[in-house]
Amino acid sequence: MGANFRSDNEVSVAPAILDALVGANEGTAHSYGEDTVTADLGERFSDVFETHVQVWPLATGTAANSLALAQVCPPYGSVYCHAHSHLNTDECGAPEFFTAGAKLIGLEGQGGKLDPAGLRVALQATGHLGDHENLPAALSLSQASEFGTVYRVDEIQALSDVAREFGLKVHMDGARFANAVTSLGESPASLTWRAGVDLLSFGATKNGAMMAEALLVFDQDLAKELGRRRKRAGHLISKMRFVSAQLAAYLEEGRWLQWAANANRQASRLAQGLTGIRAAELLYPVEANEIFVRLEDELAEGLYQAGFQFHLWPGTADVYRLVCAWCTTDDEVDGFLACLRMLEE
Amino acid sequence: MGANFRSDNEVSVAPAILDALVGANEGTAHSYGEDTVTADLGERFSDVFETHVQVWPLATGTAANSLALAQVCPPYGSVYCHAHSHLNTDECGAPEFFTAGAKLIGLEGQGGKLDPAGLRVALQATGHLGDHENLPAALSLSQASEFGTVYRVDEIQALSDVAREFGLKVHMDGARFANAVTSLGESPASLTWRAGVDLLSFGATKNGAMMAEALLVFDQDLAKELGRRRKRAGHLISKMRFVSAQLAAYLEEGRWLQWAANANRQASRLAQGLTGIRAAELLYPVEANEIFVRLEDELAEGLYQAGFQFHLWPGTADVYRLVCAWCTTDDEVDGFLACLRMLEE
Amino acid sequence: MGANFRSDNEVSVAPAILDALVGANEGTAHSYGEDTVTADLGERFSDVFETHVQVWPLATGTAANSLALAQVCPPYGSVYCHAHSHLNTDECGAPEFFTAGAKLIGLEGQGGKLDPAGLRVALQATGHLGDHENLPAALSLSQASEFGTVYRVDEIQALSDVAREFGLKVHMDGARFANAVTSLGESPASLTWRAGVDLLSFGATKNGAMMAEALLVFDQDLAKELGRRRKRAGHLISKMRFVSAQLAAYLEEGRWLQWAANANRQASRLAQGLTGIRAAELLYPVEANEIFVRLEDELAEGLYQAGFQFHLWPGTADVYRLVCAWCTTDDEVDGFLACLRMLEE
Amino acid sequence: MGANFRSDNEVSVAPAILDALVGANEGTAHSYGEDTVTADLGERFSDVFETHVQVWPLATGTAANSLALAQVCPPYGSVYCHAHSHLNTDECGAPEFFTAGAKLIGLEGQGGKLDPAGLRVALQATGHLGDHENLPAALSLSQASEFGTVYRVDEIQALSDVAREFGLKVHMDGARFANAVTSLGESPASLTWRAGVDLLSFGATKNGAMMAEALLVFDQDLAKELGRRRKRAGHLISKMRFVSAQLAAYLEEGRWLQWAANANRQASRLAQGLTGIRAAELLYPVEANEIFVRLEDELAEGLYQAGFQFHLWPGTADVYRLVCAWCTTDDEVDGFLACLRMLEE
Repeated sequence: MGANFRSDNEVSVAPAILDALVGANEGTAHSYGEDTVTADLGERFSDVFETHVQVWPLATGTAANSLALAQVCPPYGSVYCHAHSHLNTDECGAPEFFTAGAKLIGLEGQGGKLDPAGLRVALQATGHLGDHENLPAALSLSQASEFGTVYRVDEIQALSDVAREFGLKVHMDGARFANAVTSLGESPASLTWRAGVDLLSFGATKNGAMMAEALLVFDQDLAKELGRRRKRAGHLISKMRFVSAQLAAYLEEGRWLQWAANANRQASRLAQGLTGIRAAELLYPVEANEIFVRLEDELAEGLYQAGFQFHLWPGTADVYRLVCAWCTTDDEVDGFLACLRMLEE
Repeated sequence: MGANFRSDNEVSVAPAILDALVGANEGTAHSYGEDTVTADLGERFSDVFETHVQVWPLATGTAANSLALAQVCPPYGSVYCHAHSHLNTDECGAPEFFTAGAKLIGLEGQGGKLDPAGLRVALQATGHLGDHENLPAALSLSQASEFGTVYRVDEIQALSDVAREFGLKVHMDGARFANAVTSLGESPASLTWRAGVDLLSFGATKNGAMMAEALLVFDQDLAKELGRRRKRAGHLISKMRFVSAQLAAYLEEGRWLQWAANANRQASRLAQGLTGIRAAELLYPVEANEIFVRLEDELAEGLYQAGFQFHLWPGTADVYRLVCAWCTTDDEVDGFLACLRMLEE
Repeated sequence: MGANFRSDNEVSVAPAILDALVGANEGTAHSYGEDTVTADLGERFSDVFETHVQVWPLATGTAANSLALAQVCPPYGSVYCHAHSHLNTDECGAPEFFTAGAKLIGLEGQGGKLDPAGLRVALQATGHLGDHENLPAALSLSQASEFGTVYRVDEIQALSDVAREFGLKVHMDGARFANAVTSLGESPASLTWRAGVDLLSFGATKNGAMMAEALLVFDQDLAKELGRRRKRAGHLISKMRFVSAQLAAYLEEGRWLQWAANANRQASRLAQGLTGIRAAELLYPVEANEIFVRLEDELAEGLYQAGFQFHLWPGTADVYRLVCAWCTTDDEVDGFLACLRMLEE
Repeated sequence: MGANFRSDNEVSVAPAILDALVGANEGTAHSYGEDTVTADLGERFSDVFETHVQVWPLATGTAANSLALAQVCPPYGSVYCHAHSHLNTDECGAPEFFTAGAKLIGLEGQGGKLDPAGLRVALQATGHLGDHENLPAALSLSQASEFGTVYRVDEIQALSDVAREFGLKVHMDGARFANAVTSLGESPASLTWRAGVDLLSFGATKNGAMMAEALLVFDQDLAKELGRRRKRAGHLISKMRFVSAQLAAYLEEGRWLQWAANANRQASRLAQGLTGIRAAELLYPVEANEIFVRLEDELAEGLYQAGFQFHLWPGTADVYRLVCAWCTTDDEVDGFLACLRMLEE
């Protein structure tokens, strides 16, 4: 049976996370986030991000992204994001729901990344129609991007600068933020608030947690009544200590970066192996834990028959996505590559 | 003082419309659409469209478009339209508001018109993401288009066929429907329900009325609870007889087509004149009452100084829109062209 | 044929209003409110209200009320109003639609009026549930009330004081504001901003206009992006000069108060006559142009047979509403009373 | 240190639930609910409810309630519920958010329960205002009720009958459904679909689970596109097996009823003890696991000082809520009562 490269959502939860759940189960605790585990998160995240951070534990990344955007984009506003971002294509209109009908403006950009010049052109085209057009209100960047690439510090800064110039707030969808941090070797602060990011959807679920995400707010003014928005969206978890405990364990001892490091390393090994395969073509630089590769039909078919699991990328005929996770092993990667080489012969 | 080619919204109301308002002012009448003038509209429109039509009088085209889409597109749905359609760019997110957050998918297409092949490609790319993606629910066509072109019967049919194949309902934004009908010499029925259109925003305001639009529903099943939607949007006019009277007068004696015929004819004369001007370039075929023309700066400046009024098209540096109306005169067009020729020398 | 006391929405439009429409039809004018008639409204209303007023012309009262509330009440907020207010019972959830889901809290109160003590009790009961409860955000008063009574200056002030104490903004639904002003003999200023009102839905349609309401904003900070909200609700009238001209003519020469004075006077005469009828019981003080009267079945039936028109009040078996209008005549009232006396014998 | 009677949300998670999480962590599993644990839930719940049930695992009860209502109540609709129901007072407008602005109509009723006669009166008052009023669309019952009472089978049937007669669908908020089932000794089927309930929010979190609720749909037609609604609300849990595993373990071996039985039994013992206390007054029959008691200040204060934890009921001065849980012990209850008796002396 081959390994599962379908998604980092499909692998098991890290033992340290399960241990944390068991540990959090001691005695009673106030509900709805008024417990001590949750209270301590502020300090833990503030340490990691080297600034005061407001932390809002959540069960899903869609909730984190959508609540963030609802805080900074009014119903008559618009959100600029990559045309192929998860936000725009995979959340069934959640941002539109939470913002009460704002408009997402999907921009093109190489490798799943927006570029400052393109953003500037798009924003310069606004402002000529008065009340007839939506108000540009937010920029949302995915880090790592939907296609497994990562934004450098100066790229984030340049995009934020354009956003600021036009009055937009900056949100970062960090469902795979750990993978980006590890990949770049930069501090979390450098990649976020120091580079102009106002709110971060900090993901843990895809990187070893069970169901734990956090919306981090760097600019406290943007957190106004976020609590009521969270509640009315059904995202105020009653026994919140069990979400918070996952986040605490995730940060502890640098686990989040170690786990991401393994995922990235295995993706890198996989990518390297793929470059030696004639009938495989990498579509984007592999900078985090995702690989997009064009494969000849027979190869894909052979891999499936050998039991390997991975997705044909929706809307394409021959592009496949391979995802490595916190627990992907050398053997799994080697086995995949070996199978591929055998099929090619 | 030169003529006003800024918009068909800026010219005066036709005397026959004013007369109708005065005429409707006799005695008392039940409010909120329960008057006899409103009741008679069903028959009048059914005659014109050669089928049973439900008529919903409204004060604005934005309301007509948005109510129509709210009837056929759920909050988790998506509406396919031209990227540059009024719906997508000029209504500050009204469709998103009325549908409670549906997504507009703006497609490219020459001359402001969608093409069936492009629509098919877009729709074939959907359906692979399950609950993660919006449900394609509606197609919206602008007739005449935002760029003054018109869809032929077979084009509408072909687009409707694709829409139907994928389960979408078809809406037509007919803010300038009269201009399209006149231009094509086809019957209203041929251009709408016979070609697969389910709902039509039938415009009168831009073509001589004061404030009167009608949402026409050809498929009665799609009108379910439209009345409550209209009310909760604040679009149930209390003294509705005064909107309905405009619509009745507009249809009477074929006025709507006569007025549109004049607007189209003047646009045609204007376009013909422009083809003789070296420094002017028509961008699209002039098929209704709008002209998009690239002008050298000095020409535009000279025309402005001579008192002519027209819009620089938002987002461009040198493209201008000229709109002719029900009341545009030969002299106004001739004066404009004469000035232009003089400036060119 | 008897007179129509069904609604002030059912009578004819005043000739001065029709004249104004004809007058506004001279030449071209910029659309979407950028015309001079609209521009002048600010000064006209500021004169009438003795302070700087922002004026937003609209076609319906529902739009005025709902836009006002959307400006001051967030989606997670609540609006305090009378349980039987038009806002709460007759707008099919328009305030909920425009606010993206805020909650209306309907309070009881004699004669359709809220009282400060009741409001205080209701507000004191809030604030104990943290993020689990809606945020009290606005108070909405109907002047005249749904039952034809009017708030005195000190009553408005007292209610506003309570609202302010708890952080609420104050909106007044003035669909029949002219009737209230006339009835009380107080200045428009005294009844609004001087007594703590932040926004006023200023009605004209029910008092002689065709379709013209204005949302008046006294606190400019509350008008932020109101223009975009109006547009996305489909309430930006393209040929706005024809709404604005109605409002201008309405204010001119004190017409609005003269018309309301007639309506009130006729209602007063009608009420006086009814007090002499044994089988008729007035339910509320008649302070504006509406009368609520309990009538024995035979009387009501007899009046209907004589051709008089008036509504059985929804949800009751024997309470009827009689509305007098700007154009109600002595003869109409006298005829009604004469018929009633004859039936009683 | 005294026991915690604040909420069943504050106690620990049952060991069997934690075991289930560990058990579910074997190997990889498809994400977003396409795993086998989730797939098996349909059969498990169908067994328990003796009919085919659609199961939608969720992380919060607010999500379950709000999604259910969004399925059966359009934006222009209204939901009838108890004035003091959790739905109406404790979810910060979540139902309004998910339904895109429907109206909750809060009815009074003894002990937190609606009565059929009152519901009928309320519904008979509707339908007279045409498009001006919201459409009555759903009835929502809380079982157990907000005040710890439970509906009998015939009471549910009678309420459902009235609802059906007026075209409403019936939702049950079963955050404490297990407590009600245990209390009544009736089958789950008898208390739901056999008595006319269309959708059930089936709670597990308050009764020993960590974060696991299920929206159960008995009438399959009502589940149309529920998946997209769930996704766009951010409630499609990526690693859903860990929610589903809780639900499976909860049902297994009748644990859910055993745990509820303990909670009920302790509440009953506590209530019995309280009846012997002169300065304590029970407000409602204690039929599930909640007790509402009026206590003299000194008693409450003394209990707090002794370390017992329980809530002053919001909006009251001297009413306290005591909640027993799956794990409440005889000693905890006895200790509380002993302290109370000592204080009374």
